[in-house]
Amino acid sequence: MARKQISQYLFERIKNAGVDCTFGIPGDYILPLYAAQQDFGLKTVVMTHEPSLGFAADAYARLKGLGVALVTYGSGGLNMINPVACAFAEESPLLIIGGAPETKYKGQPARLHHCVKTFDTQKNVYAQVTAANATIDDLDTAQKTIDYVLDTVLTASRPGYLELPRDMMNAEIEINDLPKPNDASHNSAQTKRALNLAIEQIQAAKQPIILAGVELSRFRLLEPVCRLSEALNIPVATSMLGKSAFPESHPNFIGNYFGQFSNPSVREFVEDCDCILGLGVILTEMETGGYSAKLPADKLILVNSEEVSIGENKFTDVDLKTFLPEFTHGIVNGVREAKGHKFYVPNIPVEETNNAKNELSVGHIISAINQVIADNLCVVCDVGDCLYAGLSIKTDLYVASGYYSTMGFGVPASIGVQLADRTKRPIVLVGDGGFQMTGMELSTAVKEGLNPIVIVFNNASYAMLKFIDKDRKYYGLPTWDYAAIGKALGATSYQARTCLEFDSALKTALLSNQAILIDAVLSPEDISPTLKRLTEHFGKKMRAAAVS
Amino acid sequence: MARKQISQYLFERIKNAGVDCTFGIPGDYILPLYAAQQDFGLKTVVMTHEPSLGFAADAYARLKGLGVALVTYGSGGLNMINPVACAFAEESPLLIIGGAPETKYKGQPARLHHCVKTFDTQKNVYAQVTAANATIDDLDTAQKTIDYVLDTVLTASRPGYLELPRDMMNAEIEINDLPKPNDASHNSAQTKRALNLAIEQIQAAKQPIILAGVELSRFRLLEPVCRLSEALNIPVATSMLGKSAFPESHPNFIGNYFGQFSNPSVREFVEDCDCILGLGVILTEMETGGYSAKLPADKLILVNSEEVSIGENKFTDVDLKTFLPEFTHGIVNGVREAKGHKFYVPNIPVEETNNAKNELSVGHIISAINQVIADNLCVVCDVGDCLYAGLSIKTDLYVASGYYSTMGFGVPASIGVQLADRTKRPIVLVGDGGFQMTGMELSTAVKEGLNPIVIVFNNASYAMLKFIDKDRKYYGLPTWDYAAIGKALGATSYQARTCLEFDSALKTALLSNQAILIDAVLSPEDISPTLKRLTEHFGKKMRAAAVS
Repeated sequence: MARKQISQYLFERIKNAGVDCTFGIPGDYILPLYAAQQDFGLKTVVMTHEPSLGFAADAYARLKGLGVALVTYGSGGLNMINPVACAFAEESPLLIIGGAPETKYKGQPARLHHCVKTFDTQKNVYAQVTAANATIDDLDTAQKTIDYVLDTVLTASRPGYLELPRDMMNAEIEINDLPKPNDASHNSAQTKRALNLAIEQIQAAKQPIILAGVELSRFRLLEPVCRLSEALNIPVATSMLGKSAFPESHPNFIGNYFGQFSNPSVREFVEDCDCILGLGVILTEMETGGYSAKLPADKLILVNSEEVSIGENKFTDVDLKTFLPEFTHGIVNGVREAKGHKFYVPNIPVEETNNAKNELSVGHIISAINQVIADNLCVVCDVGDCLYAGLSIKTDLYVASGYYSTMGFGVPASIGVQLADRTKRPIVLVGDGGFQMTGMELSTAVKEGLNPIVIVFNNASYAMLKFIDKDRKYYGLPTWDYAAIGKALGATSYQARTCLEFDSALKTALLSNQAILIDAVLSPEDISPTLKRLTEHFGKKMRAAAVS
Repeated sequence: MARKQISQYLFERIKNAGVDCTFGIPGDYILPLYAAQQDFGLKTVVMTHEPSLGFAADAYARLKGLGVALVTYGSGGLNMINPVACAFAEESPLLIIGGAPETKYKGQPARLHHCVKTFDTQKNVYAQVTAANATIDDLDTAQKTIDYVLDTVLTASRPGYLELPRDMMNAEIEINDLPKPNDASHNSAQTKRALNLAIEQIQAAKQPIILAGVELSRFRLLEPVCRLSEALNIPVATSMLGKSAFPESHPNFIGNYFGQFSNPSVREFVEDCDCILGLGVILTEMETGGYSAKLPADKLILVNSEEVSIGENKFTDVDLKTFLPEFTHGIVNGVREAKGHKFYVPNIPVEETNNAKNELSVGHIISAINQVIADNLCVVCDVGDCLYAGLSIKTDLYVASGYYSTMGFGVPASIGVQLADRTKRPIVLVGDGGFQMTGMELSTAVKEGLNPIVIVFNNASYAMLKFIDKDRKYYGLPTWDYAAIGKALGATSYQARTCLEFDSALKTALLSNQAILIDAVLSPEDISPTLKRLTEHFGKKMRAAAVS
């Protein structure tokens, strides 16, 4: 037992989880916590707008296992609901700490600035988009409340909201030792049955494949999936949302599977396999390429955070975290006696996208990046055609909001990525629409000494909408001089209208240590190979759904 | 009875309420409604980011009596919670129409893009920040649902949320005639007692004053308050939030009362009055100047949307809308027989703020604007010292988020203001912090042919926070070249470091028809007279509260 200030205990737990900076914008209801944090020695990366800082903290969380956002009441916390919803949908362990008026105001009518209906309005809103949420309003239960919210975030890999009234922030409480983690074995009868069934099925298969999903990243299961793939020499495709959940530089990696919109060679190989081991894949609309993926139940072993199903058999007591390490262990040990069970891994080259005209195209951007991409680079994507373009780039670290699909994610997320891993310089693909939402956060990158290379896909429109509907006046965007804006924010900036200009800008960018913006001027009719396949596949059906 | 598409009925009701454009960003879950709106002939002003479009629609709503925002599901609707919360707190009649997946997805687990927990997540969030919210998921009740949400918005002058699954947007329904408005007299026994008591008290007073609050604007009670003031020749001060709820060009207007932070001459006069008729004033922390206002119960007749209280007497059945017209009627008729009851209106000049040094200051900006302000101009303020500076400018139309106090309000709100009233050109006062949040919306103003004059108070910091706490590294802002940014967005731009440069830029701006940005470079130590009084009054107490 020891006495500590609530702020002290909170920041200790955050630091112990591996966090070395938080994200926020100061406001009067949270100033005492900012001051306490400074005394504690943890830095807040102050950003310019809450919708961006949520994305930055989310991206940081995905790499570090925890991200933290510090926001004020009302105009702060309520301005970050969309990125928190994104983090929930994308299974990102994001802790939001919200300041609030003093506890004495609880139960009184809203009469203070930043108040809406009641003291609890903000907490009630957060309840809809978080896995845990609580207000610290009692010294006796303060530690339990902090532990509950933080542990839920860490275990579920979903956002949690912790509200601190201003008078609670530096109040002293008794601290009890944390309970030891529960070591109880998960090796139940059900787990054993599932394991045996899956092992049998893999061993009976002629050509199995692992379909690696995003939950492998979220639950930090890279090591067992790599060992598994190596022991059997099974090829690995990543799912749309799982891109880079398995390293693309690994010899067993064959490509990204996105149903009918995949690179055709990847699709053909995946769909010809007779056993698909889906690890950490949840079969959402985006993940299955609008349900165009061919993952028939009799071929599929599906293992994710919600369920394990093998053919017709469902195992509700087992999940990815308990299953995968045991499965890998079983396979690795079994395989020693049966070397014959090594499988075939095809060599599928990266899709050729360069259309070799002088006019700049999305295809050329993809191809140019694939030529220079290296270990010290990673790819961060916004939403729109840039997301589909990003799928064609070979990289070991790819960060996007593929499932929730929220515009404005790219530039702020690149800040979280680079702060979480200083060895990775982000190449950011962002549409002009997404850049107009949050691209100004580039100034925060400059302020923090980061050096993303931001490529604005400038086609002067919400191009995706045009392609799923038709050309309409209200899909046009206002004109921005992106290069001038990049410069005004402190980034070195270029405009590229031709392939040559783009190659030259990218080359110079890679030689520079500065934050870079490249205004990539595209024809409004030019799209990525993936989006082309998507619009061809759905064709009129999508148009009809979009406007009828 | 007639059969109509839901979209048709909805847009007819919106148009009949006086709305000539809506605000939005198209997204796939709402595209059919955009297409239907275009066919109907109502324009959507497409903006660049949801947090801004909410402010624009709020400002439009305040002037027109209704504002409408059209947003997509998830990344659209959930990115607008803060402006809707602001509209709730500021009593603005804002209708949000949210697109949603087809009704068949209701009750299923979230598996579509833009989904969070369940189909109802967004609706549940909106329930916390609106006065009415509903999903149209049944053709038989569709009209009732639309009428309920829209009528609540119009009557309560608070936001409402209407969710339309994509398959409902153009579905046909039977339309019944709207019921006639209820003409029942509100002249209850309680109303009569309240009226008599108030009239007696006014007539017994030596020097009464009207304190005009924001609800006079929201409930469109300008006419009775003007008649009342003229009949008795009572002076009128506006409250902090009520600024411009009574025309500042009216001879009976004496100034803005903000407790201890008022212009001292105004404060002295108001506090010396022996009867204060507070109309549409709600005594929040901001409205009372942090509770420094002197409004003792024995002098105060308080009439607002929630209550009527006269000294110790509370009248819960009476409210502003029912009371004021009757009261004015009673006074105007009574006064004809007692001309002696005309009172004294002092002449209090606008406070002198020009500190006459060459270096540009907030005081000089206020003074320069007061010298040129005219009927065709209005003032729109963001939050921070610019809000306090705005209080010192004499104008008949002043729009701000004084109570909810959300940064980022100014530039987008000016778009809503000018679209609602093309005869008014907005002068926008915005801090650098607020501009970094939503200032890029200036490009939407340019696109729509609007011509605000945006003055960026550039002191390179969250100055308010420095003044209520102390100078800290994390209150500094990243460096932006605002004039270059204004230019890159299509606005004519100037940088002003001296009084002369500012005067010249302002003069040129007034002669131009274009959107203008003036980067007003201020010393980080320079603040408005109002904020100076505020920090002097609270002094150490505020600092202690801010960080302890």
